[in-house]
Amino acid sequence: MNLDDLRTLLEQIQRQERSVDSALEALRHLPYEDLDFARLDHHRKLRTGVAEVVYGPGKTASQTLEIVRRMLSARGQALVSRPTPEAVEAVQSEFAQSRYYETARLLAVGNFPQPAETPFAVVVSAGTSDQPVAEEAAVTLELHGVRAVRIYDVGVAGVHRLLDHLETLWQARVVIAVAGMEGALATVLGGLVSAPLIAVPTSVGYGASFQGVAALLAMLNSCAPGVSVVNIDNGFGAGVCATLILRTKTCK
Amino acid sequence: MNLDDLRTLLEQIQRQERSVDSALEALRHLPYEDLDFARLDHHRKLRTGVAEVVYGPGKTASQTLEIVRRMLSARGQALVSRPTPEAVEAVQSEFAQSRYYETARLLAVGNFPQPAETPFAVVVSAGTSDQPVAEEAAVTLELHGVRAVRIYDVGVAGVHRLLDHLETLWQARVVIAVAGMEGALATVLGGLVSAPLIAVPTSVGYGASFQGVAALLAMLNSCAPGVSVVNIDNGFGAGVCATLILRTKTCK
Amino acid sequence: MNLDDLRTLLEQIQRQERSVDSALEALRHLPYEDLDFARLDHHRKLRTGVAEVVYGPGKTASQTLEIVRRMLSARGQALVSRPTPEAVEAVQSEFAQSRYYETARLLAVGNFPQPAETPFAVVVSAGTSDQPVAEEAAVTLELHGVRAVRIYDVGVAGVHRLLDHLETLWQARVVIAVAGMEGALATVLGGLVSAPLIAVPTSVGYGASFQGVAALLAMLNSCAPGVSVVNIDNGFGAGVCATLILRTKTCK
Amino acid sequence: MNLDDLRTLLEQIQRQERSVDSALEALRHLPYEDLDFARLDHHRKLRTGVAEVVYGPGKTASQTLEIVRRMLSARGQALVSRPTPEAVEAVQSEFAQSRYYETARLLAVGNFPQPAETPFAVVVSAGTSDQPVAEEAAVTLELHGVRAVRIYDVGVAGVHRLLDHLETLWQARVVIAVAGMEGALATVLGGLVSAPLIAVPTSVGYGASFQGVAALLAMLNSCAPGVSVVNIDNGFGAGVCATLILRTKTCK
Amino acid sequence: MNLDDLRTLLEQIQRQERSVDSALEALRHLPYEDLDFARLDHHRKLRTGVAEVVYGPGKTASQTLEIVRRMLSARGQALVSRPTPEAVEAVQSEFAQSRYYETARLLAVGNFPQPAETPFAVVVSAGTSDQPVAEEAAVTLELHGVRAVRIYDVGVAGVHRLLDHLETLWQARVVIAVAGMEGALATVLGGLVSAPLIAVPTSVGYGASFQGVAALLAMLNSCAPGVSVVNIDNGFGAGVCATLILRTKTCK
Amino acid sequence: MNLDDLRTLLEQIQRQERSVDSALEALRHLPYEDLDFARLDHHRKLRTGVAEVVYGPGKTASQTLEIVRRMLSARGQALVSRPTPEAVEAVQSEFAQSRYYETARLLAVGNFPQPAETPFAVVVSAGTSDQPVAEEAAVTLELHGVRAVRIYDVGVAGVHRLLDHLETLWQARVVIAVAGMEGALATVLGGLVSAPLIAVPTSVGYGASFQGVAALLAMLNSCAPGVSVVNIDNGFGAGVCATLILRTKTCK
Amino acid sequence: MNLDDLRTLLEQIQRQERSVDSALEALRHLPYEDLDFARLDHHRKLRTGVAEVVYGPGKTASQTLEIVRRMLSARGQALVSRPTPEAVEAVQSEFAQSRYYETARLLAVGNFPQPAETPFAVVVSAGTSDQPVAEEAAVTLELHGVRAVRIYDVGVAGVHRLLDHLETLWQARVVIAVAGMEGALATVLGGLVSAPLIAVPTSVGYGASFQGVAALLAMLNSCAPGVSVVNIDNGFGAGVCATLILRTKTCK
Amino acid sequence: MNLDDLRTLLEQIQRQERSVDSALEALRHLPYEDLDFARLDHHRKLRTGVAEVVYGPGKTASQTLEIVRRMLSARGQALVSRPTPEAVEAVQSEFAQSRYYETARLLAVGNFPQPAETPFAVVVSAGTSDQPVAEEAAVTLELHGVRAVRIYDVGVAGVHRLLDHLETLWQARVVIAVAGMEGALATVLGGLVSAPLIAVPTSVGYGASFQGVAALLAMLNSCAPGVSVVNIDNGFGAGVCATLILRTKTCK
Repeated sequence: MNLDDLRTLLEQIQRQERSVDSALEALRHLPYEDLDFARLDHHRKLRTGVAEVVYGPGKTASQTLEIVRRMLSARGQALVSRPTPEAVEAVQSEFAQSRYYETARLLAVGNFPQPAETPFAVVVSAGTSDQPVAEEAAVTLELHGVRAVRIYDVGVAGVHRLLDHLETLWQARVVIAVAGMEGALATVLGGLVSAPLIAVPTSVGYGASFQGVAALLAMLNSCAPGVSVVNIDNGFGAGVCATLILRTKTCK
Repeated sequence: MNLDDLRTLLEQIQRQERSVDSALEALRHLPYEDLDFARLDHHRKLRTGVAEVVYGPGKTASQTLEIVRRMLSARGQALVSRPTPEAVEAVQSEFAQSRYYETARLLAVGNFPQPAETPFAVVVSAGTSDQPVAEEAAVTLELHGVRAVRIYDVGVAGVHRLLDHLETLWQARVVIAVAGMEGALATVLGGLVSAPLIAVPTSVGYGASFQGVAALLAMLNSCAPGVSVVNIDNGFGAGVCATLILRTKTCK
Repeated sequence: MNLDDLRTLLEQIQRQERSVDSALEALRHLPYEDLDFARLDHHRKLRTGVAEVVYGPGKTASQTLEIVRRMLSARGQALVSRPTPEAVEAVQSEFAQSRYYETARLLAVGNFPQPAETPFAVVVSAGTSDQPVAEEAAVTLELHGVRAVRIYDVGVAGVHRLLDHLETLWQARVVIAVAGMEGALATVLGGLVSAPLIAVPTSVGYGASFQGVAALLAMLNSCAPGVSVVNIDNGFGAGVCATLILRTKTCK
Repeated sequence: MNLDDLRTLLEQIQRQERSVDSALEALRHLPYEDLDFARLDHHRKLRTGVAEVVYGPGKTASQTLEIVRRMLSARGQALVSRPTPEAVEAVQSEFAQSRYYETARLLAVGNFPQPAETPFAVVVSAGTSDQPVAEEAAVTLELHGVRAVRIYDVGVAGVHRLLDHLETLWQARVVIAVAGMEGALATVLGGLVSAPLIAVPTSVGYGASFQGVAALLAMLNSCAPGVSVVNIDNGFGAGVCATLILRTKTCK
Repeated sequence: MNLDDLRTLLEQIQRQERSVDSALEALRHLPYEDLDFARLDHHRKLRTGVAEVVYGPGKTASQTLEIVRRMLSARGQALVSRPTPEAVEAVQSEFAQSRYYETARLLAVGNFPQPAETPFAVVVSAGTSDQPVAEEAAVTLELHGVRAVRIYDVGVAGVHRLLDHLETLWQARVVIAVAGMEGALATVLGGLVSAPLIAVPTSVGYGASFQGVAALLAMLNSCAPGVSVVNIDNGFGAGVCATLILRTKTCK
Repeated sequence: MNLDDLRTLLEQIQRQERSVDSALEALRHLPYEDLDFARLDHHRKLRTGVAEVVYGPGKTASQTLEIVRRMLSARGQALVSRPTPEAVEAVQSEFAQSRYYETARLLAVGNFPQPAETPFAVVVSAGTSDQPVAEEAAVTLELHGVRAVRIYDVGVAGVHRLLDHLETLWQARVVIAVAGMEGALATVLGGLVSAPLIAVPTSVGYGASFQGVAALLAMLNSCAPGVSVVNIDNGFGAGVCATLILRTKTCK
Repeated sequence: MNLDDLRTLLEQIQRQERSVDSALEALRHLPYEDLDFARLDHHRKLRTGVAEVVYGPGKTASQTLEIVRRMLSARGQALVSRPTPEAVEAVQSEFAQSRYYETARLLAVGNFPQPAETPFAVVVSAGTSDQPVAEEAAVTLELHGVRAVRIYDVGVAGVHRLLDHLETLWQARVVIAVAGMEGALATVLGGLVSAPLIAVPTSVGYGASFQGVAALLAMLNSCAPGVSVVNIDNGFGAGVCATLILRTKTCK
Repeated sequence: MNLDDLRTLLEQIQRQERSVDSALEALRHLPYEDLDFARLDHHRKLRTGVAEVVYGPGKTASQTLEIVRRMLSARGQALVSRPTPEAVEAVQSEFAQSRYYETARLLAVGNFPQPAETPFAVVVSAGTSDQPVAEEAAVTLELHGVRAVRIYDVGVAGVHRLLDHLETLWQARVVIAVAGMEGALATVLGGLVSAPLIAVPTSVGYGASFQGVAALLAMLNSCAPGVSVVNIDNGFGAGVCATLILRTKTCK
C-alpha cells in the first residue's frame, strides 16, 4: 500500500464508501509492511544511491542471472561481486552492455553514473597482491559516481614511496587503505592525512597472518586516530563507506 | 629548521655569504626532520582540529599530570581518556577549570570549542551497560565542536524502540552504533539509515561474548552496507572518525 | 497512537471533521511507532508472560534500583540476575516483599505466578560447582510458573547416578543440562531422553576448559539429536527457552 | 534378553526347572545389556519418532549403501545427510522409491510420515546462500511429519521484509532462524516472536566470519530471550530440535 | 538392590512366596540402577583404589567440609585439591589427623596407603614455578601408595641437568613431565626414556604462553613417541594416570 | 666410538701404546657423541621395541622409499604412516613382502612380531568415520606384538551399545578411546573402566568441531580420572603409548 | 630531485639566476620526497646488500616476469620466493642465466655474490619435511654471500644426533633453527650455543599443530635466552636476519 | 668429573693402578654428565657472558632470596626480573650493594660490567606505556656491558618524530623496537635501518589488542626484511638477543 492507496482509502471513508471498521482492519496490519518500510527503503535509496551488491561465490550461474534480471528491472542496475566465470559468461551473453572489471572481480549491468572530478577518494594499497581488493574498492567508488585516485604498491617498509603522494592524499575527501600482512599502512597513513580513513585488511600473507587476521587486528588497534575498519578483503564495503561519507556532504 | 631558517640560508647563498657545499650539507640531513614533517603535522592539526588523547590506564598520576602540562602549553588543550581517580584528582587540583566527564571517563583541560547546532551526529547504544562507551564517543564529538544526539537503550530485541527515532536518524550526518553482546544493532541501524555508520563493539556480555569479540565479529560481518568498525570499547576513536567525516565537509 | 486513536481519526474523516491530507500526515509517520510495534510487544508479552531480566553486573545499586522501580510500575514485576550485594540491599530495603535467591543469584520483586504441578521441566547438573547456573535456570522456570525438578551432581563419569533418575527424565517436557569441564552430560542425556534438551555450558573448570569454551564446543557438537545450546553460564536463558517450549503448548 | 525371556526365566525358577544360582548368574550380567537399555532405546524411538541420520561426508558409496540397507530392514526408513553424488546414485539405483532433496542435501529411503497441517514450524533464512541449510531444516521437519513454512531471504538489513511475515511468525509453534555473516536475524526474530527460537549459524561469509564463528557467537550472545543455538550449518539438528518441541506437545 | 536381595527375590519365587509378575515389575526397573552399576562402581574402586578428588575452588568452606564428611563415612578417606584457606581450616579443625600438603595444595583426610619402594614413578619439572603442579602429581602418587621420585628444576635449556638423572629415569615405570612456557621438556624426556610419559603443561609463563596453551600444544605435537597429555596444571590427573598404569601391572 | 673402541683405547694406555694426552683429546669430544647417546638410543630400542614411524604426507615417493631402505637395513623394519598412493606403490614394488593396511593407512616393511594373546588392549571408537584413526591405533599395537580388541561404533548417544562390552573392557590392560565431534566417549569410558585410558580426538565433525578441537578440549577436560590425551587423529601415538604401558609390565 | 639537482638549484641562487622565493617553493615540497628518502633507501641498500624478494604466490606469470624485469634493470638482480611453475618457466625462458633452487623454491636472476668461507651461519632443521623452509633460509644466505652450513634431520627426540654437531654449532656466528610440530629444537639449540639464534616455525604437523602455531608459540616462549622468531615457514626472513647480523660486523 | 679427574683416571691406568674394566665402568656413565655438558655450559658462559635471569612472579620472597644467594656464590652475580616488592626488600636488606631498576623491574646483585661506548644498541619505543618493557631491554643491555641509546615515545602515527633520530639509528649495531597496540613501529623501523631489528610486542592496548597478540602478529608478518620477534613484553629476551648479536662480533 503506497501513499496513493492510503489516500484513496481515506477518501473512501470521507465519501462514506467504506466503513471505519473495514478501514481499520486494512490499516491494522498493513502500514508498516507496504507503506512505511517501503518508504524507508526508497528514502534510503534516493538519498544514497548506494547499489545493492550480489555476492557471487556459492551461487550458480543461473541463480546469479536470475537475480541480475530482477534487480535490473527493479532498479535499472545490478552489481555482482566475485562472480564465478560461468556467471560472468551467463550474464554477459544475455546483457551485452554489461562490463566485467577483471581485477576488481565486479560485474556491472545497467546504468551507473559517471564519476565527478571532485571531491575524490584515494585508494592506497601496500603490495601487488592487495590489488584485487583495492580495485574492488576503487571500481565500487566509480560505479557510485566518485572519482577514485589509485596509489598502489606503497608499502610502509619503504615509507618514502608513500610520501611522494602527500599532496594527493591531502586533497582527498576520504582515504581507503588496503593492506595485508602486518597492515601497518593504515597507521602510517592515519598519521599523515586528515581525511577519514577506512582500512581494509586483506588475506595476503602466510603463516601467522592467519588469512588477514594479523592485518585486521593491527588496523583495529591503530594508534592513529580516525581509522575505522571493514571486514577482511571487503573492498566493496570500503567503497560504499567512502561513497556514503562523500554523499552525505552533497545532500545538504 | 623552519621556513625562516631556510629562507635565511638561501639568502646567505644569494649574498655569497655561504658556499653551496656548506648549504648542501645542511640541507642533506635536515629538511625532513625539522621542516617538512613538522609542517605536515601542523597542516594536519590545522585542518582537522582533532585533539590528541592521552590514554590514562597504566600511567601514574604524576605521569599524566606532566603530559597534560606539556600538551596544554603546546596546544592550549589536553584530553585524557579513562584516567585513574588519582590522575583526575592531580589534574583537577592543578587546573581548576578542567572538566571530568564521569560516565565518559574523559578529562578535558583547556579550551575546547562549543558544539554547533548542525550538522550533528547521532550516538545510538543498545543497553545501559554500553553507556560509558557511548558517552565517550558523544563527549569526544562535543569536545571537537560537533553536536551529539544521544539515543540510548534501544537494543534490537525490541526493534520498535529504535524505529521511534527514525526521523532523527535520517537527519544525522553520521551515526555511531555502540553495542556489546551480539552487536546486531549495527546491522539493523545500517539497514535504516543512509549516513555513514561507525560501529563500536563493547565488552559488555559474558561467556561466549569473549569481552567484545562476538560483537566485533558481528559488526565486521554486517550484511548492511556502509558500516565500518573501530576497536572494542573505543568510543573515543569512533568520535574522532565521526568528527573527521563531518570536518571534511566544511573544509571546502 | 492506539487502536482507539486510529478509530477516532478515521471517524473524524468520516464525519468530515478532518481533512484527508491532515490524516495522511498523521498516518505517514506514526503507525509503526505507536501502534503496530507496541501491539507487537504487548502481543508478545501476553502470549509468553516471559519476564524481562535486568543483568546486574556493571550496574550501580542506584541504577538497578531505578530500573526495578520502572519495571514494577510498568509490569508489576521485576527480575534482576546476578545483582551486586549493594543492589540486593538497595532493592530489598525499598521493596520488603522482594525475594533474593542466593544460589541462583536472582532477585525477584513483585508478583510472580505459582508453579503448576504439570507439565514440568527437569534441570540436571554435572557437579557441585555447576549448581549456581542450574539454580538460575530452575528458579527462572519457577518464576514463570513452571515446576522445576532438580537432579544435581550426576556427572557422566559415574553414569549410573544419572540412570537412577530415568523415570523422572522420561516424564519431563523439557530437560536442561548444565555442565562445565567437558560437557559430556548433554550428549549422554540427549541419548536417554526424548524431550527437547537445552544444554548450558558453564565456566567451571580450569586450564584448557577456557572458561567454558570446551563445554560449549562439546555441546554444539553433540552426536545426540535434539540438543540446542545457550551461552556459557546462561541459566536464565535456558530457563526462558524451556518456559517458551512449555508455554507454546498451552496456547492452543 | 527381552521381557518375555525374563518372564520365562522366572517361571523356570517357579517351576523348579532352574536353580537360583544359575538364574543369578544369567541376571548378573545381562539386564542392562539386552533388556533395560534396549527398552530405553525403543522407548525413545516410540515416543519421538526421530529418525537417526547418517552423516554422508567421509563415507564411501558402498559404506553408505550398506548402512542404508541395515537401517531400512531395522526401522523401515533411512535418512542420509549430505551424501556424496556416488552415494546418491548407489542408493537410488538399489532403492527406486528413494527421494533425494537436492538443495537440502538429504536422501530419504523408506516410509516417512505426511506432514500435518498444524501445528507448524517456520524456517526463516537471511540470504540466498543460507538456503541449503534452511532447506535441510525444513525437509527434516517434513520427514518427521511437521509442516515447515519457509520464509527465505529476509535479512535484517532490510528489516521490513521480515515484518511482512509477522502473522505467520506469530502462529508458528517453533521458529528456526538460519543466518550466516553477522547472524543478527536471530536477535531481531527473537524480539518479534513468542515461540521458542532455534538459531542455526551458517558458514556463509568470508574473512572475519571465520566459517560461521561470527554468526555462532552472535547467536549465543543474543540479547533476545528464548534463543538456543545448534552447530554451524546444522540444519538437520535444528529440524530435530523443532520436531521434539512439537512432539512433546502431542504426547499428553 | 544388591546381589543378596536379588537372591532373596529369586528364592521367594522358587518358594512360591512371590508371583512372577511382581518379581518382573521389581526387576524391570531396578537392575541397572541399584545392582549393576553399583557393582560396576565397586568393581572399579576395588581394582584401582583411585581416590575421588574434590576440586576445591568455587566451593565454600562448609560445602567442602560436608563433602569431606560424606566421603569419609562412605570410603574412609577424602581428598581435596586446591582447597581455599578457609576450607583447610574448617576441615583441619574437625579432623585433627588430616594432612595438608601446602605446595601440592592437597588436603588428605583419613586412611591412605604407604608408598611401596618399587615400582616407582618419576616426576620431572622444568622450573621452580612448575613445582606446585609437580608436587600435586607426586603427592597424588604417594597417596595412592606409589613412590614418587622428584627431579625438579631441569629445564631443557640446560639439557645436561636432565642427563644427570638418566639412571633414575631408566628405572622408572612411568614418568611425569611437568613444564610451562614452551614445554620442550616432554619431547626431550620422551626421547630419553622408554617408560610411558605423561606430560603436564603448566600455566607458567607470560605473553604468548597464553596461560599454558603454548606448552599444551607443544606437548600434543611432541615428535617423541609415547607421550600423552593431561589438562593444563592438572597434576592430580597425571598422578592418577600414572597410578593406573602402575596398578594394572599388579592386578594380574 | 663404541664400548669396544673405548676398551681398546684404555688398553692402549695400559700398554703404554698411547699417551694420556692423546687419549684425553679423543675423550674430550667423543663420548657423548658416539658412545653414550648411541647407547642411550640402543638401550631405548632394546627395552621398548617401539618402531620409529615415517610420517608420509609431504614426502615424495622416492624420499619415502629411500627412508624405508635405510630403516630396513638399520633395524630390519620400517613403518610409514599415511603414505601417498605413489609411495605405497614405490615401496611395494621394491619390497614384495610389505603390507599396506588400507583403513589404518600404515605401510609395514620387514619383520614385525606376532601379537600375543594376553595382555591385550581395547580400541573403542565412536562412529564409522573415526575408524581410520582407530585402525591406525589398533594396527600399531599389533605391529608391536600387542593384541588389539576392536569395539567400534559405540557412540555415547546410545550408551547401551557401550555397556554390551563391559566384560571385555574390564579385562583390558589399557583402553584407547577414539572419537570426534564432542568426544564424550572418553569421559563415559573413563567412568567405566579401571585401566589407563588414552583418548584420541579425531577431526570428524563440522562447524564448531573445528577439525577436532572440540573433541580435544573435551578430552583434556574429562571429569573422569585417568584419561590422558594425544594429538588430533594421532592413532599411531596412542598405539605407541599403549604399547609402552604394556611393555613396562613385562620388563620386571 | 637528486643531489645534483639540488646543487644546481643552489648554484642558480648563488648566480642570482633564481629568486629565493622560487627556490623556497621548490624546496618546501620536494626534499623528503625525491632526495632524502631516496638517499635513505640507497644508504640502506649500500650498507646491507639485502635483496628485495618478490613473493610469488598469487601473482600471474606475466606479473612476476614484469617485476623481475624492473628489478633487474634497477638493481641488476631479482629474487622470487615460491614462484608458480608457470612463473619459473616464464622467467627462465627470458633469462637463460637464472637459477631455480627447487627445494628452496627460490628463483634468482642476475648477479649474486659468492659466499665467503667465514664467518658462516648454520641452518639446523628438525625433520625431512622442514627441509624446504630450511633450504629457503640457506639459499637466501648464500645469495647474500654468506656460507650456510646445513645440519638437517636432527630432531630433539633423538638429542644425540644434535650433539654430534656441537663443534660446528660453536663456530657459527648465527644459527637458524627450523622446526615444525612442537618446535623444541629451538630451545634445546638455544641452550647449547652462544651465537644469536633465529627460530623458524614451520607448518609441518597435523591436528593441534594448527599449521605451525604450536611451533610458533613454543619458540616465542623458549626458556633459552637469545632466541628470536620469524613468521611460520619464513625461511627467507630468517636468512635475511642472519645476513644482517653477519653484515653489521663487517661494516666497521 | 672434570678434565683433571679424567686425566688422573687415565694416568692410573697408565700406571697400572687401575684396571681397564673399572675405568670403563666409570666412563660409561659419567662423561656426558659431569664433564662434557658442564664444559659445554662453561663454554657457553665464557663466550657470551649472558647472565641467567630469575623470573620473579610466582616466587615467594624467600624463594627468590635463596636463588639469588646460590647464583651469587656460583657466578658472582644474580639478576631477577619483575620481582615482587617483598622480594626486592628481602634481597636489598641482605645485599646492600644490589640495585633495583624500578621502571625496568630488574633487580641486579653482584658484579656487572660497565657498558662500553661502542658499538651500541638502540632501543626504540612507541608510547609511554611501552616504557617498562623498553627499559627492561635497555637495562639488560647495560648489565651485559652494552651501551643502550633510548629513543622513546616515537609512535609511527607521527612518523616525523622517528625520522629525527635517523642518524643515531643508522649508527646502531642492533635495534630493538618496542610497541604495543598495532605494532607498526617494527615495520617502519625495519624499512629505515640496516641493522638487525628485534621486535618486542607489548601488552599495551585494549579490546582487540588481546594483550599484545595484535602487535605480535603484526611484527611476525612485517613486510620489512630483517625483523625477528620475541615474546610479548619480553624486554629481557630482546636485550639478550641484542647482546649476543654484538658479542659474536668481538669474539673473532
